[in-house]
Amino acid sequence: MTQLQAARDHVETPQLAAAAGRERVEPDALRERIAAGRAALPANRNRLSGRDFCVIGEGLSVKVNANLGTSATASDLDAEIAKLEAAEAAGADAVMDLSTGPELARVRAALLGRARAAFGTVPVYEAAVEAAARHGSTRAMTAGSLLDVVRRHAEEGVDFVTLHCGLTRRALQALDASGRVCGIVSRGGAILADWMRAREAENPLYERFEDLLGICAEHDVTLSLGDGLRPGALADSFDDAQVTELVELAALVRRARAAGVQVIVEGPGHVPLDEVTAQVKLQKRLCDGAPFYVLGPLVTDIAPGYDHIVGAIGGALAALAGADFLCYVTPSEHLGLPGPEEVRAGVVASRIAAHAADVARGVPGARERDEAFSRMRAALDWPGMIAGALDPAAAEAGHARGQAGEVCSMCGPLCVFRTNRGSQESQESNGQAGR
Amino acid sequence: MTQLQAARDHVETPQLAAAAGRERVEPDALRERIAAGRAALPANRNRLSGRDFCVIGEGLSVKVNANLGTSATASDLDAEIAKLEAAEAAGADAVMDLSTGPELARVRAALLGRARAAFGTVPVYEAAVEAAARHGSTRAMTAGSLLDVVRRHAEEGVDFVTLHCGLTRRALQALDASGRVCGIVSRGGAILADWMRAREAENPLYERFEDLLGICAEHDVTLSLGDGLRPGALADSFDDAQVTELVELAALVRRARAAGVQVIVEGPGHVPLDEVTAQVKLQKRLCDGAPFYVLGPLVTDIAPGYDHIVGAIGGALAALAGADFLCYVTPSEHLGLPGPEEVRAGVVASRIAAHAADVARGVPGARERDEAFSRMRAALDWPGMIAGALDPAAAEAGHARGQAGEVCSMCGPLCVFRTNRGSQESQESNGQAGR
Repeated sequence: MTQLQAARDHVETPQLAAAAGRERVEPDALRERIAAGRAALPANRNRLSGRDFCVIGEGLSVKVNANLGTSATASDLDAEIAKLEAAEAAGADAVMDLSTGPELARVRAALLGRARAAFGTVPVYEAAVEAAARHGSTRAMTAGSLLDVVRRHAEEGVDFVTLHCGLTRRALQALDASGRVCGIVSRGGAILADWMRAREAENPLYERFEDLLGICAEHDVTLSLGDGLRPGALADSFDDAQVTELVELAALVRRARAAGVQVIVEGPGHVPLDEVTAQVKLQKRLCDGAPFYVLGPLVTDIAPGYDHIVGAIGGALAALAGADFLCYVTPSEHLGLPGPEEVRAGVVASRIAAHAADVARGVPGARERDEAFSRMRAALDWPGMIAGALDPAAAEAGHARGQAGEVCSMCGPLCVFRTNRGSQESQESNGQAGR
Repeated sequence: MTQLQAARDHVETPQLAAAAGRERVEPDALRERIAAGRAALPANRNRLSGRDFCVIGEGLSVKVNANLGTSATASDLDAEIAKLEAAEAAGADAVMDLSTGPELARVRAALLGRARAAFGTVPVYEAAVEAAARHGSTRAMTAGSLLDVVRRHAEEGVDFVTLHCGLTRRALQALDASGRVCGIVSRGGAILADWMRAREAENPLYERFEDLLGICAEHDVTLSLGDGLRPGALADSFDDAQVTELVELAALVRRARAAGVQVIVEGPGHVPLDEVTAQVKLQKRLCDGAPFYVLGPLVTDIAPGYDHIVGAIGGALAALAGADFLCYVTPSEHLGLPGPEEVRAGVVASRIAAHAADVARGVPGARERDEAFSRMRAALDWPGMIAGALDPAAAEAGHARGQAGEVCSMCGPLCVFRTNRGSQESQESNGQAGR
């Protein structure tokens, strides 16, 4: 049974109990949301011990994913392990191994063996890299080789897989007519589209969708429906190509649910600030409340070096509108493979966005955490603030630099909390004198 | 004549012409907005040469202010000059000297002599520091000493002054009844409230408002009505104290306009993500479209060390909703006085927020800049991207780290733009073969 099937059968699994505890919600309320497909609990049945579980979806705390993985030009296993550790230390709920470099199965095994977070992959990468290595071209992939990779990942314990099943020929036609600025910016989408064009064939992930569902159901792999045609430039947001693919994905959500497979939907991408809310509302409506997993969104194209900030802006607004799962963006986005420090910065930025949205979504404990923190701020309780900060190490380092006795060097003796206190004390003594 | 009076008289000043050129709008359209008080052009008549002019308000590009200045515990003139240079290099439209350290008049003169940006101050700081130095207490300020400082700043060429004129006894009563978590977090507000309580007197900036308007009108100093009771914790947002003061400010906006004084209104502060839009809508409605100058807003309390990111999230959403002027927040906020690097980081984060909002507001040239940039991205035109980036130096450094031949180390040979190109070329050759 998948977590979805168990939820429908009113079974409270240990994974559900663990996730509900972290979420501070009643297990049964969570079970109902999973049963309805409005929340997903990625938990491959081959990887149920020595790890954490999180549930992603409607009204729940917003989760953060960190992308890891090598490329052909930057491949270092130790660095990937350091990136995993940095991501988990900074609070990532999930990680994806997007390796396309040498020995990618070995990298995945090393990361899977160490990760506590939910673990995702994009199987088309491995199929493409294998095809290129063996036959000189990613176009040598076959439907069979793609399914083999998906099955392998499922057997190894991967919790969720991105599959661009909605990138149909119909969606590609919309793309060709679109006059896009940036064409396809999904790596898996670009590989599949190239394959489909070269072979004049339908997307094998679409044609073999029932087989994929069979694999996912068997191992309880959560299907993350990839948006191969996500906009990669503000100018491309909400175009016919993007929306045509989303309509396809919505139909696949229903088929996945019917097969008892947990499913989430991936979304953009580069989106103007004034379209972020509409993007989320459209996905939620079309896909019947399926969890929404967004990459950013990035609200400007022009800030390479700062795309973690750009993504935090878009992610906060998307999560406020109902997006459930934020794929982080690092300062290296569009420039190169991130290292551990960029991974850390990316997770922290996304967690800020997620927490800001959690407060707005009324997630249990979120607003209370800010209030408790602010009470410590008013009391100039520095140890308390450091311990309670989103990133205690950064707060501690900043405090060490700026400390000026009880107060900080921003205002020095004119610290408002000192002024307020002095004002209150003299009022109280005036009050006593008057009695 | 102030810029407001000139605009009402259908006079196109050289400063208006310069600002309209930068804004890419027709001078007459801009003049009408200034005449209506829906835009402000800070331009002290004693400082009209060797500098830049910006106009702040409805439908215009969102402007960014960087706070500079010393404190009693961190005071270094060279550092302040370096901060000014960092702020202007990063694209700040305005700077404020918030010095409260020794020789603050000398610091101000040094910064005023070098700044090209619009220049603002908070005169109550100098009055308070003078009173403390001469008489041992900030409570020794007088209405006369406050007005003297404002007049001095006006004569020296300060373009805009923050004055907390709406912090009335009525607003203080609302504060006392509010049970706030963080009380007053405006430094000027805290000093004034303490003075008012100790003396059981009305706010001199409120009582002497007509005198202040006289000074502002004489020198064309733009009045920035400070929000002394802005919320300093999410829990304090939209409370009776904040809103009572805002209602007072709205009445003062009308009086300032009647006196021909340009006026903008300052706003929060710490605001939950789901209240940011409402904060802006309320200010715009109550204050009849007066330009809105927000500090952040900060959408969580718990992220010291990252408040530039927290402020960029809130600032982008506020500017989308109609806020016109973003006061930056640096990574040092709540921890200490920023140095030049934190100033740079703060300005960049705010400019990202401002630009994302500019795209959404339809500011001329904003969306076009992203599209041109993305076309260079699709063409792998790295020199073009570096030159066109929001921070060219950061883009260049990131590219230097991540460069892998024509592509970058994120995807290496699987770069989507290469895949797209290969796909297109083979399609074209197939097409030719078919003919």
